Amino acid sequence: MRRIRLTVAYDGTNYHGWQIQPGVVTIESVLNEALRDLFGEEIQVIGASRTDSGVHARGNVAVFDTESRMAADRVCFALNQRLPQDIRVQDSCEVPLDWHPRKQRCVKTYEYKILNRRMELPDARLYTYFYYYNLDLEQMRRGAAYLLGEHDFKSFCSARTQIEDTVRTIYSLEISRNQEDVVTIRIKGSGFLYNMVRIIVGTLLNVGNGHTEPQEVLRILEARDRREAGPTAPAKGLTLIGMEYEKTP
Amino acid sequence: MRRIRLTVAYDGTNYHGWQIQPGVVTIESVLNEALRDLFGEEIQVIGASRTDSGVHARGNVAVFDTESRMAADRVCFALNQRLPQDIRVQDSCEVPLDWHPRKQRCVKTYEYKILNRRMELPDARLYTYFYYYNLDLEQMRRGAAYLLGEHDFKSFCSARTQIEDTVRTIYSLEISRNQEDVVTIRIKGSGFLYNMVRIIVGTLLNVGNGHTEPQEVLRILEARDRREAGPTAPAKGLTLIGMEYEKTP
Repeated sequence: MRRIRLTVAYDGTNYHGWQIQPGVVTIESVLNEALRDLFGEEIQVIGASRTDSGVHARGNVAVFDTESRMAADRVCFALNQRLPQDIRVQDSCEVPLDWHPRKQRCVKTYEYKILNRRMELPDARLYTYFYYYNLDLEQMRRGAAYLLGEHDFKSFCSARTQIEDTVRTIYSLEISRNQEDVVTIRIKGSGFLYNMVRIIVGTLLNVGNGHTEPQEVLRILEARDRREAGPTAPAKGLTLIGMEYEKTP
Repeated sequence: MRRIRLTVAYDGTNYHGWQIQPGVVTIESVLNEALRDLFGEEIQVIGASRTDSGVHARGNVAVFDTESRMAADRVCFALNQRLPQDIRVQDSCEVPLDWHPRKQRCVKTYEYKILNRRMELPDARLYTYFYYYNLDLEQMRRGAAYLLGEHDFKSFCSARTQIEDTVRTIYSLEISRNQEDVVTIRIKGSGFLYNMVRIIVGTLLNVGNGHTEPQEVLRILEARDRREAGPTAPAKGLTLIGMEYEKTP
């Protein structure tokens, strides 16, 4: 038996998120089917991040165990031939049998993209959130600065979850605008609560449009109350860029 | 009666090109329907560029005539509410009744995007042509230099057309690579023959991968024979960026 690690990119538009659920198509179910087809074994991947419905990925991580002796670095190519075009495994390698993608310390990077202009653009509609109103990026950066470091992010966690430890660390939060009117918010952290990135984005958009003063972000953080933060920004603007593990085997 | 000019962006993926044809959905037919719905008149747009099936646009131009008195600069907003998400009118203005988008001298700009890396990326699949092999951009630029200026581009015109005057002018041809492994070929010209941009791209890809020497592009141009040029690159990598009219009313 061997354990293989996959780096998986996908367009989340047509999937009900990562995790298997009855009656709907998910990234996990499609990967399991393609692996069963490739190796003729019953295979169940373990994913690092259970992305929500509509969220995209450039580098989610998954492992699976197999009896197959196929060269580990060829698995990605063989698998891509059995996957739909909106899922593409970027690479594959062998890892120790006890390497688990959710039980290692790692840094996760997310990007949230906002199309900020007068008119929507058809080719950006699936991967950006369209936002008509002017955004002041300097104000957004001032607000974002309060979120850097280790904090209790309870205000930025969906009230629907009952997780107890809501302390997380944000290592960096960069906001930039490109020539195509796309504002990108790039966040690196030690792990994220449910909807945390999207609630941070919704809050920073309120800062960018002048509705919330940058220093209010500190008050929101300290309130430890989801109702104080801004709205949850739509899933389609969010992409899980990748995970860096401390101990890469 | 007034004439309104539209600047139209679209994702060509789900359309059989611009021009109305029986039994299929085209950009032109969808625009006509939305205009009929908006103004209650039978309206027929006249397009500047009849883009092919699968080709995208950021700035195609169209005009139509109407009895309506709606403020010309509001037409784009009202129209977008009646259009599918993959077509978005970027702006609208009034022009003289005799202003015709194909009977004015203009400069057209096209971009062709190539995803040049080891693995496909799901979110680039609709707007780029995936190309695995290494591309030498310096060699491609040397080859492209022979195409600048006024030439007979018969070798770069689909053999299926019977157009007589195949002389056109290319004002600029820029090739660049961004951090996301996307190679962009940007061409400005006085008008383009059928499939001309896509055949130029197919020829330059052969130069980039080492199959064709840059100076061969001169021989291909002088041959005035479609069979000497490279293959026609796929439609999905091509976007009509815009048109600049000499006399903008």
